[in-house]
Amino acid sequence: MKKVGLIGGVGPASTLDYYTGIIEGVREKADGEYPEVIILSINMAEIISYIEKDQWDSVILQLVRANEKLSAAGADFSAMAANTLHLVFNEVSMRSPIPMISIVDETCKYVKNSLYKRPLFIGTLFSMRNRLYSETMEKYGIASLLPSEEDQKKIHSLFFPNLENGIVIPEDKVKMLALLNNIIIEQDADSVILGCTELPLMIKPRDLPVPIFDTTEIHINSIVKRILSK
Amino acid sequence: MKKVGLIGGVGPASTLDYYTGIIEGVREKADGEYPEVIILSINMAEIISYIEKDQWDSVILQLVRANEKLSAAGADFSAMAANTLHLVFNEVSMRSPIPMISIVDETCKYVKNSLYKRPLFIGTLFSMRNRLYSETMEKYGIASLLPSEEDQKKIHSLFFPNLENGIVIPEDKVKMLALLNNIIIEQDADSVILGCTELPLMIKPRDLPVPIFDTTEIHINSIVKRILSK
Repeated sequence: MKKVGLIGGVGPASTLDYYTGIIEGVREKADGEYPEVIILSINMAEIISYIEKDQWDSVILQLVRANEKLSAAGADFSAMAANTLHLVFNEVSMRSPIPMISIVDETCKYVKNSLYKRPLFIGTLFSMRNRLYSETMEKYGIASLLPSEEDQKKIHSLFFPNLENGIVIPEDKVKMLALLNNIIIEQDADSVILGCTELPLMIKPRDLPVPIFDTTEIHINSIVKRILSK
Repeated sequence: MKKVGLIGGVGPASTLDYYTGIIEGVREKADGEYPEVIILSINMAEIISYIEKDQWDSVILQLVRANEKLSAAGADFSAMAANTLHLVFNEVSMRSPIPMISIVDETCKYVKNSLYKRPLFIGTLFSMRNRLYSETMEKYGIASLLPSEEDQKKIHSLFFPNLENGIVIPEDKVKMLALLNNIIIEQDADSVILGCTELPLMIKPRDLPVPIFDTTEIHINSIVKRILSK
């Protein structure tokens, strides 16, 4: 089995999801075997303060260092357990001593293989504003749709910060589904990408008229596959 | 802040408790700061198979290697997130490149500082049979009490394996408390040590006529203190 190094801590709840998902995924597919997993949980407060001050070089430096540490601890490849950090995926992976698996790239490949052509991307305001998935989607020949600026703000406020703490407010869910239904019709979307670890807590497979893609789940599955690859 | 390296995976559920407990503990005591935590989750199936074959040298070797990897990844000290592994704590820490914090030693110090003299130790059949806490308790001048061999088997069967999966069966809890009440009276115990991560799910602070000590909680607190030490 290959050893995964996980860059976690942004936030800790998502790190737990990845750890549990990887262990369960490998156990299911490899007859109860347990993989060796190395997690480096970084200082979230430090990273957020860099992002807020637009000091992306410092974010990149911290993530490159994290990869160096994971490599030193024996990781064969690594993954970042957070959508947001993927804004600097290319800069980090270029300088990393071990290969990295990107949640963006894995999701785009998955959408392409599932033959969907017009996915609507939703996530934190930060991810939507920065069009986190757009460039890679284009590379795969997929039109990545985004909510209007006004709707981006509404979507963000309907799940943040309550969902970060695992709390789904029923009224917010109703409002979110109504809003997404409108956007899906307006933009003729054929699927929805949930580009934030917490969104699948609120939006379930049959809540919308089109299929949803859970980026965390797709990422974890790709990690499990790589662990079990020859 | 000092960096902790956690040897986890035995089992994964306990590793999640440690990770969450350490992050929350540091945030509470250090004004919302996030510590850098490195977790090496080892292959539980491999370790259990060594233990079952009595190949303790292989267990020790794996744990020493885990410490070497954690040290290479930048950990300043380490801890094993499982009571059972502490049966070889001395052999491992002697060969580890970084200092280790023992759940057994921290618990014994805590019991001594709390001025209790006759704690009853309960845990898995394996930990009770091997008198995991007895030698260290003696070192601190404390009489460590153990259930009779017959009661050890009963205690083990009342929480294993259901509690491993997070399931508390009400009938088993009633039986467990009745049994412990009898042993406490018979042996004149002044406290109870819960020497297994899962036991605090079943046995709560006011369930017994004497105080209980949660070894995992004590261990996590010691780790948090060390992270925040100068």
